Amino acid sequence: MDKAKYKSALIVGTGPGLSSSLARLFARNGLAVAVAARQTDKLAALAKETKASVHQCNAADPAEVARLFETVEKTGGAPDVVVYNASNRVRAPLVDLAPDDVKRAIEISAFGAFLVSQQAAKRMLPNKHGAIFLTGATAGVKGFALSATFAMGKFALRGLAQSMARELSPQGIHVAHFVIDGGIRSAARPVPDNAPDSLLDPDAIAETYWATLVQHRSAWSWEIEVRPWLEKF
Amino acid sequence: MDKAKYKSALIVGTGPGLSSSLARLFARNGLAVAVAARQTDKLAALAKETKASVHQCNAADPAEVARLFETVEKTGGAPDVVVYNASNRVRAPLVDLAPDDVKRAIEISAFGAFLVSQQAAKRMLPNKHGAIFLTGATAGVKGFALSATFAMGKFALRGLAQSMARELSPQGIHVAHFVIDGGIRSAARPVPDNAPDSLLDPDAIAETYWATLVQHRSAWSWEIEVRPWLEKF
Amino acid sequence: MDKAKYKSALIVGTGPGLSSSLARLFARNGLAVAVAARQTDKLAALAKETKASVHQCNAADPAEVARLFETVEKTGGAPDVVVYNASNRVRAPLVDLAPDDVKRAIEISAFGAFLVSQQAAKRMLPNKHGAIFLTGATAGVKGFALSATFAMGKFALRGLAQSMARELSPQGIHVAHFVIDGGIRSAARPVPDNAPDSLLDPDAIAETYWATLVQHRSAWSWEIEVRPWLEKF
Amino acid sequence: MDKAKYKSALIVGTGPGLSSSLARLFARNGLAVAVAARQTDKLAALAKETKASVHQCNAADPAEVARLFETVEKTGGAPDVVVYNASNRVRAPLVDLAPDDVKRAIEISAFGAFLVSQQAAKRMLPNKHGAIFLTGATAGVKGFALSATFAMGKFALRGLAQSMARELSPQGIHVAHFVIDGGIRSAARPVPDNAPDSLLDPDAIAETYWATLVQHRSAWSWEIEVRPWLEKF
Repeated sequence: MDKAKYKSALIVGTGPGLSSSLARLFARNGLAVAVAARQTDKLAALAKETKASVHQCNAADPAEVARLFETVEKTGGAPDVVVYNASNRVRAPLVDLAPDDVKRAIEISAFGAFLVSQQAAKRMLPNKHGAIFLTGATAGVKGFALSATFAMGKFALRGLAQSMARELSPQGIHVAHFVIDGGIRSAARPVPDNAPDSLLDPDAIAETYWATLVQHRSAWSWEIEVRPWLEKF
Repeated sequence: MDKAKYKSALIVGTGPGLSSSLARLFARNGLAVAVAARQTDKLAALAKETKASVHQCNAADPAEVARLFETVEKTGGAPDVVVYNASNRVRAPLVDLAPDDVKRAIEISAFGAFLVSQQAAKRMLPNKHGAIFLTGATAGVKGFALSATFAMGKFALRGLAQSMARELSPQGIHVAHFVIDGGIRSAARPVPDNAPDSLLDPDAIAETYWATLVQHRSAWSWEIEVRPWLEKF
Repeated sequence: MDKAKYKSALIVGTGPGLSSSLARLFARNGLAVAVAARQTDKLAALAKETKASVHQCNAADPAEVARLFETVEKTGGAPDVVVYNASNRVRAPLVDLAPDDVKRAIEISAFGAFLVSQQAAKRMLPNKHGAIFLTGATAGVKGFALSATFAMGKFALRGLAQSMARELSPQGIHVAHFVIDGGIRSAARPVPDNAPDSLLDPDAIAETYWATLVQHRSAWSWEIEVRPWLEKF
Repeated sequence: MDKAKYKSALIVGTGPGLSSSLARLFARNGLAVAVAARQTDKLAALAKETKASVHQCNAADPAEVARLFETVEKTGGAPDVVVYNASNRVRAPLVDLAPDDVKRAIEISAFGAFLVSQQAAKRMLPNKHGAIFLTGATAGVKGFALSATFAMGKFALRGLAQSMARELSPQGIHVAHFVIDGGIRSAARPVPDNAPDSLLDPDAIAETYWATLVQHRSAWSWEIEVRPWLEKF
């Protein structure tokens, strides 16, 4: 029984630290890494550390996503691991939401995931090999008050992930959806001293992505949730 | 314990017969009815039968939806029952989907539901009274292969419904999501002789919407699924 | 399209008022009613009001349940509607639970439901007609801390209901599971003045059971949740 | 960020190969291993290979389970990892099930898991450290026709797991529920040549248990499903 083996990863979107943790972990395990984000100006240090190529891309734009994959493909070959982390939300009472904000949020959280997954699948299917991992949130399984926008985007993302898992798994592509059920710690959001590990450590999340990535195809997971030990759920 | 009482209904979108069944049932129970659809040319008979006003509207367009509610409001007052039935899908392998089709499908299935619900809620909240019912599908709880588009739209719709139920219920608005789990019979899709009642009768679905509508607020449902007795699930 | 028609109902177990509300509603709609409970001494008034026959029965005992159905059958014919309301719970930290209490709780909440459903199904299957309704709780879909016992019993009940729905629906028996998501008001638990209708009115719950009972078989529900408009969920 | 560290494991119940795979993997990673089963006569080879102690125990009997933990504790200290794999089922139409079989199946699949978890938690709570892993099945999330017994047992197990996760996680005990969604390959059930890896490899499942065990407490999973890439779901 061999663990799955992958060569190169493309990470789209920058969450609060998760993309960086994934890039580092993938690089440490020998994968070539590419990172894409709407704003790339803060990615220089990461690029240097992980030798990742950095790409500017609006993930909700079909042409830009197509171009992203063409560029990445030319440099280091088509990625056999693609992770989608981008999302967008507006928190407000339903009646106060600006329709354009809602539309854009859905496009970034879900439509962009479709675009990226489609480009990824096109390149993976001929080899019957690859992994497409989508980063979800509590909002994808539970629609909260004042959070209609995020619920729509993340539920849609989960629907996409489940449909893809059913369609692509038997063709050799491992599709997984991660429910990040809690806040992620960051410089801006440090862990309180009196509640150690009460915010998700992005390196810890990345470990679970990796464990999922190396699963043998006789026992694939399609959905994995992670939450801090102290989190109410 | 009094059953809830409603005066006027707006039905948006035309499903396979469900909108007509709802219009008839609402009218029979004394509600003033308005019907909105993208194409209204086939609605003359229904309008005559139910005395419903008929409105042309692209439900995915913010300005058109705002205008729809203004027009309906002027004629018979703001509706205290609003049902969203519109949806759109493209069935194809993931890699064959045209991005524009996917975007439009999500906009009609989910973004339009947001627009209509928002306009409805704005008018219901001051009275702390009203009902917003969203018509979902199996695809909203189960993402099938070859059906990523429908899964995204209907999952997003369900996320919207759940978020709205949590936010608006305590403000007196009954939000419900209906999972239509099976095919609906129609002239184009008759029930097979050897499998009676094996397709959903739109009048039967409408009865369950009505039963949900008259629920006492101490015992509201937010999600109700219906399926034929012979349906695999 | 005809609504389903039923003649006689057997209600097993007495919840906080729900069994009585069901008995009254069924009787008002012309059904012959039988009520079974472990303790029957408080049921005289209900029996008089609804002309229900009253039966003493420990629902977790196979022989007693078999005898119950034989007795009811002799009196007024086999019931074509059977409702199971009995449940039992112990609230305590996991480590403090007495194993015997846990075993008994599961037997009353779930094993008894199996026994009653089996006797009911035996009599309904030859006619391809009948309804078996099981009363669940929030605990059947969400396992709370300090509530392992109730979670085990009510999850098991839901599993039973779902399995029976899949097996018996195509044979003409309508199986439904009701998620009572909130407290039920009673003499001992009155509704707070400052939060009207914030506890489930048992008459209101009964209305939803009735609406489900009369559903046309082309559009059956198998699971329906009800909660007060002010309930957090 | 340190990975969790464990010293000794107790595995209760023997599934089709999973218990053995877990014992081997735990032993390889340096844990002391104890194995308990109703019938221990086939466990000699495993015991020799993994240096595991072997214990005869009926997991549905409170006194035997208490004695099991006392014995294991004396030998190698209280286990800080406990896995429950035992289950029982009867497959038959609802009306053909023997009540005693149903009762016993629930007791083995769910009540036994409670007994084992309780004994485990008693010993883990003082140290605020430990892991309790419960092996579920598709039947725990989907109740199939002709499978009421298994549905009841595995739903109840899931309810127990969810309740324990909410109660014990904030006290330092990692509770996880694994949904084994497919058949496990074994000598009696070999993988078909034309569908490689279409049955779950028990070693592959064990890898995912291990990955879950070493999760950092800021990012614990409570439910993980695994299925073969070719499995319909």
